[in-house]
Amino acid sequence: MLLHGVGVGRGLAVASTLRMPEPLAEPTDEPSTAEPEAELARIEVSLAAVAADLLARGAAAGGEAQDVLNAQSLMAEDPTIVEDIQTRLGSGKTADRAVFEAFAGFRDLLVQMGGYMAERAADLDDVSQRIIAHLRGVPAPGVPESATPFILVAHDLAPADTALLDLAKVVGLITREGGPTSHTAILARSKSIPAIVGVKGAENLADGTLVVLDAGAGTVLTEPADSDVERATERIAQRAAEAAAPLRPGALADGTLVPLLANLGSAEGAAEALALGAEGVGLFRTEFLFLDSTEAPSVESQVTQYEAMLRAFVGKKVVVRVLDAGADKPLSFLNDAKEENPALGLRGIRALRAAEDILRDQLLALATAEARVNGHRDDLEPGEKVELWVMAPMVADADDAEYFVSFARELGIQVAGVMAEVPSSALVADQIFDVADFVSIGTNDLTQYTLAADRLLGSVANLQDPWHPAVLRLVGMLGEAGRVAGKPVGVCGEAAADPLLAVVLVGLGVTTLSMTPAAIADVRAELARHTLAEARELARVAVAATSASRARAAVTGLSAANAIG
Amino acid sequence: MLLHGVGVGRGLAVASTLRMPEPLAEPTDEPSTAEPEAELARIEVSLAAVAADLLARGAAAGGEAQDVLNAQSLMAEDPTIVEDIQTRLGSGKTADRAVFEAFAGFRDLLVQMGGYMAERAADLDDVSQRIIAHLRGVPAPGVPESATPFILVAHDLAPADTALLDLAKVVGLITREGGPTSHTAILARSKSIPAIVGVKGAENLADGTLVVLDAGAGTVLTEPADSDVERATERIAQRAAEAAAPLRPGALADGTLVPLLANLGSAEGAAEALALGAEGVGLFRTEFLFLDSTEAPSVESQVTQYEAMLRAFVGKKVVVRVLDAGADKPLSFLNDAKEENPALGLRGIRALRAAEDILRDQLLALATAEARVNGHRDDLEPGEKVELWVMAPMVADADDAEYFVSFARELGIQVAGVMAEVPSSALVADQIFDVADFVSIGTNDLTQYTLAADRLLGSVANLQDPWHPAVLRLVGMLGEAGRVAGKPVGVCGEAAADPLLAVVLVGLGVTTLSMTPAAIADVRAELARHTLAEARELARVAVAATSASRARAAVTGLSAANAIG
Repeated sequence: MLLHGVGVGRGLAVASTLRMPEPLAEPTDEPSTAEPEAELARIEVSLAAVAADLLARGAAAGGEAQDVLNAQSLMAEDPTIVEDIQTRLGSGKTADRAVFEAFAGFRDLLVQMGGYMAERAADLDDVSQRIIAHLRGVPAPGVPESATPFILVAHDLAPADTALLDLAKVVGLITREGGPTSHTAILARSKSIPAIVGVKGAENLADGTLVVLDAGAGTVLTEPADSDVERATERIAQRAAEAAAPLRPGALADGTLVPLLANLGSAEGAAEALALGAEGVGLFRTEFLFLDSTEAPSVESQVTQYEAMLRAFVGKKVVVRVLDAGADKPLSFLNDAKEENPALGLRGIRALRAAEDILRDQLLALATAEARVNGHRDDLEPGEKVELWVMAPMVADADDAEYFVSFARELGIQVAGVMAEVPSSALVADQIFDVADFVSIGTNDLTQYTLAADRLLGSVANLQDPWHPAVLRLVGMLGEAGRVAGKPVGVCGEAAADPLLAVVLVGLGVTTLSMTPAAIADVRAELARHTLAEARELARVAVAATSASRARAAVTGLSAANAIG
Repeated sequence: MLLHGVGVGRGLAVASTLRMPEPLAEPTDEPSTAEPEAELARIEVSLAAVAADLLARGAAAGGEAQDVLNAQSLMAEDPTIVEDIQTRLGSGKTADRAVFEAFAGFRDLLVQMGGYMAERAADLDDVSQRIIAHLRGVPAPGVPESATPFILVAHDLAPADTALLDLAKVVGLITREGGPTSHTAILARSKSIPAIVGVKGAENLADGTLVVLDAGAGTVLTEPADSDVERATERIAQRAAEAAAPLRPGALADGTLVPLLANLGSAEGAAEALALGAEGVGLFRTEFLFLDSTEAPSVESQVTQYEAMLRAFVGKKVVVRVLDAGADKPLSFLNDAKEENPALGLRGIRALRAAEDILRDQLLALATAEARVNGHRDDLEPGEKVELWVMAPMVADADDAEYFVSFARELGIQVAGVMAEVPSSALVADQIFDVADFVSIGTNDLTQYTLAADRLLGSVANLQDPWHPAVLRLVGMLGEAGRVAGKPVGVCGEAAADPLLAVVLVGLGVTTLSMTPAAIADVRAELARHTLAEARELARVAVAATSASRARAAVTGLSAANAIG
C-alpha cells in the first residue's frame, strides 16, 4: 500500500514504525468510594515517582530538554496543585479525577495568560498524564522507546513531545496532521530527519510495520518488496556519500550562484553551520539576548555576544535581524500583554519605533562589534573581514524602511535592509528598494498575513502553506523589484528549506536562500539539477496554480519530467 | 489658528466647542477612618441613585442606547459586586477605593474573556466612575450636556461614550487621536456629523471656543473672522439644499454610472436607506440573526426575516453576506474562544466550511425568501422583483470561492460571489473571477491584514488607513481582474464612504460602492465632480504615493487643481 503526504526534505528511511501512544482516557467524574486520606497518600507516592522520573530523564537528556524536564518535575510536586488535589479529594472525587481536574484548572489559567505561559500548558498536561498513568499502573503516554531505530508515527508532534524524543533512534517521521510549517516539519528539517506530514491513513499503521519512507516523493510504502528496500537502501547510501563530498557553493545547473546561508538563533550553532556548508548567515536572530530579562541588555554585553558570533564568520556575510519582539514572543519591557491579536499588534520595528533607545543600543552594539572584529580597518580584503548586514523585522512600507535604514546608517551600520513579511511590503517593493539596501523575505509570517491564517493554529493549517500562489506572487513582486533596483532579495523562512520550492523561489527572482543548516545539502543538490530558465518555468507553473497543493503537484510533476528529459 | 487632521465626510460646522470631561482621578489606597457599615450605607445610596439615573437616561434615549443603559443599571446593583465591595470595606478600604477595586476586578475578568464581553468592560468603567462621582458629590464624567448645539472635543470616543451622546446637540466632532477607521469616524459617517480626527493641538481647545470645522478640508479654524463664519454658514445652507434635491443615481461627471448602495445590519434601516438615496443594498450583514442565541436559528425563522428585508427592496439589488462569525464577533456554537489571534482564526467561510449545516440552512432560507418575494415567477421585469446576490466572507482563494459558489448554486441561489478581505484573494483575483459572479471588497479587513495591523488596536492605528498605497494596489488588481472577466467589483468597507477615496476606488476599477446610508449624498456629489479619466489619474497618483497620508494629500491637491481648472 502506498500512502501519500507532504514530504519534508529529500531523505529516505527504511525501518519499522512505532506509534506515539494516544493520551489516556479522561477519568470519569463519579463519586469516590475510597477514603480521601488513603487516596492522597497514593497520589503522593505517584507525584514523587513522576517527579523523580522526570529529573532522571532530564539529567540523561541535558541541554534545553533538561530545563523543560526539570520544570515539569517541579510542577508535579507544586504545593498549590497538591493543595487543590486535596480539596477535590475532600469533596468526594476519585484520585484520578482529582489529579485531572487540578492540573486542568492550572492549565486553563496558563492558557489565559497567553504567550509563553500558554505554551507551557502542554507541559502541565504531560505531567498530569504521567501521574494518572502511575496511579493506574499503566505506562505513561509519551514518546515510545525502542532499542533499535524506528520510524515514529503520530497524530502530530507538539514541542513537548519532541523535547523528550531520542532522536538518535528516530530515522523517520510520519504524521496524520500538520503541514509544511508545522512543528513536526520544522523539527524534521532542523534535525535532518526524513518526514512526511499530513498522511491520510497513517492512523492505520500498526506498530512494527516495515515501511519505505521517501520524503522527496512524499510517499510511505508498506509491505515493500525486497527490491524496494534494496533500492531505498542504495539511495540512502548515495545521499550519505553526497553529503560527505566536498562542499561547493550553492548554484544552479547553469552556474548561476545562489548563496546558501544559515538561520541561527545564537552563536553556538556557528561551527555546525559552517561544517554543513553554510556560506554565511542569512538570518541571525537576536531575541536570545533579550529573553528572560526584565530590561534590555547593556550595549557592552551585546557587543561581546555579537563579536563572538561575527568572529566565527570572518570572510563571510552575516545578516543580523534586530530584536523581533511581540506576537508569540512578547517582552515585558517592550510589549503590551493585552493585545487581542498579538500577531497584528505592536511588534517588530513598530515596537522598536515606540522604544527607540532599545534599537539605538542594539545598532550601536552591532556597529561596534563589527569594527572590533575587522580591527577598525577599511583596507581588508573580503576574505579577511566579516561583512555585517542588519535588517528590521515587520517593515510595512517605505516609511518604516526609511526610518530604519537612516537610523542604522547614522549609527555606523553600512548595509541596512528590511524583512518582507507584512504583505504591504511586497506590494510596495519598488518604493522599499528606493531606500533599503536589500530585502529578506520571511515566508512564514508573509504566508500567515497573506492568507490571514495564524501560523500556530491547527484549524487553519491548510491555509498555512508557502506554496500558495498568492504568496508566490508576492515573492515574484519582490524579486522583480529587486532585479529592477539591482539589489539582493533573500528568503529566510521555512520555504527556503524545501528543495523544490527553493528552486521556484530562485525562479521568482530570489538571489540567496537562508535556512536551518541541516537542510543546506538537499537544497544545494536540488538547485544543481535546474538551469535558471527551468527555474523560471517552474515558477511560472507554480503561480498559475489555483492552490498550494496544486502548485506543489504541478511543479513536482514538471520537475520530474525535466529530470527525465 | 488653523488645526489640521483627517476629515470624515464633507460637512462643515460653526459652533462653540465643549470638551469630553476627563476621567476621575483614581482613588488612593489609604486605610479608611470610617466605619465599614456606615461606608456601605453611603455606597448603597450611591448605587441606587446611579442605577435609577441610568434607567431614566435609557428611557429617554430609547433604541440600542436604552439596552446599554439598562444593562449598566443592573451592573450598578449587581449583588456579586456589592458583596465584593463589602468585603473590601471590611478589610479597611475607603468607600471610593472599595468601589474602584471591585469594579476593576470584574472589568479585568471581562477583558480576559475577550470578544463581546471585553467590549462591555468600558460600560463597567463608566458605572464605576458614576458611583465614585456620586460618592464624592461631583458631576459624573461622561458626555457634556448643553442647551445649545456644540462641537464635541475629545481624546477619542469609545462606543460607550457615544451611546449616551445627545446627537441632536452635537454638530461636529474633533478628536486628538483616532484614524479614518476609528469608532469616532464610523459614528460620524453613520450619523452625518462633520468630524476631524487625529487633530494635533485639539487638547488645547478651551470650552466655548468658536470654531469653523471643515471636514472636506480637514481643518479646524479658531478665532474665525466674520467673513469665515459667513462663508461656512453659506456652504452649510448650500449642502442642505443639495441634500434636499431630488435623488439621482450615482454617476461620474461623464455619465459613467456608479451605483451607490447601503450597508445594513438589519431590515430596520431599509426605509431610511431608500430615503437617503440608496440604489440597493451592497452589504446586508446577517449576524444579528445569530447573536444572543446558543444555536443557529431555524430555516423558517430566517426565511421570515430575509423576506421582510427583501420586500423592502423590490426593484433593486440586495447583496447578502452569509454569517461572518469569529474574530471580534465569536459565536459559541461556531467558534473556538481560545484562539491566540482570533482575527487570523477560523472565521467567516472557514468556520462555515467546518459547520456546513449552518451554511446550508442559511442559503436555503435566502433562496426560499427570494422565491416568496418574487412569487416563484421567472417572468418578472427588473422593476418588479428583488435581485438577490449572496456572498461569502473571508474567502482566501479560488478553492474557497469554488466551494461557496457551487454550494450556493446547488441550493437555488442564482448570483453568488465572494468578499475580498484576505490579501490572497486580491493576489489571485484572476482565479477567483473564474468561479465567482462578483467580488465585493471589504476594505477594513483587507487593510488590517495587508498591513498586519489590528483594526481595533490603538497603538497600530497609524497603519490602519485604506488610503495606504499597498491596499490601493490590491484594489487595483481586483478592479483589473474584474474588468478582464467582465464582472462587477464592489467596495463595502468604510473606504467607500470617504468621498475622495470613493473616486480613487472607481479609478482603480471598482464598479459599485456600498456604505452607511448617511454618507451617500456626499459621495454622490463628489463622484459627479470627476470624469472617469480624472478618477483614473487620481488613482495613479494615489498608488504611486509612499504612504497613506501622502496619497491622501496628493489626491486632495490634484482634485482641487482639477476643480479650479
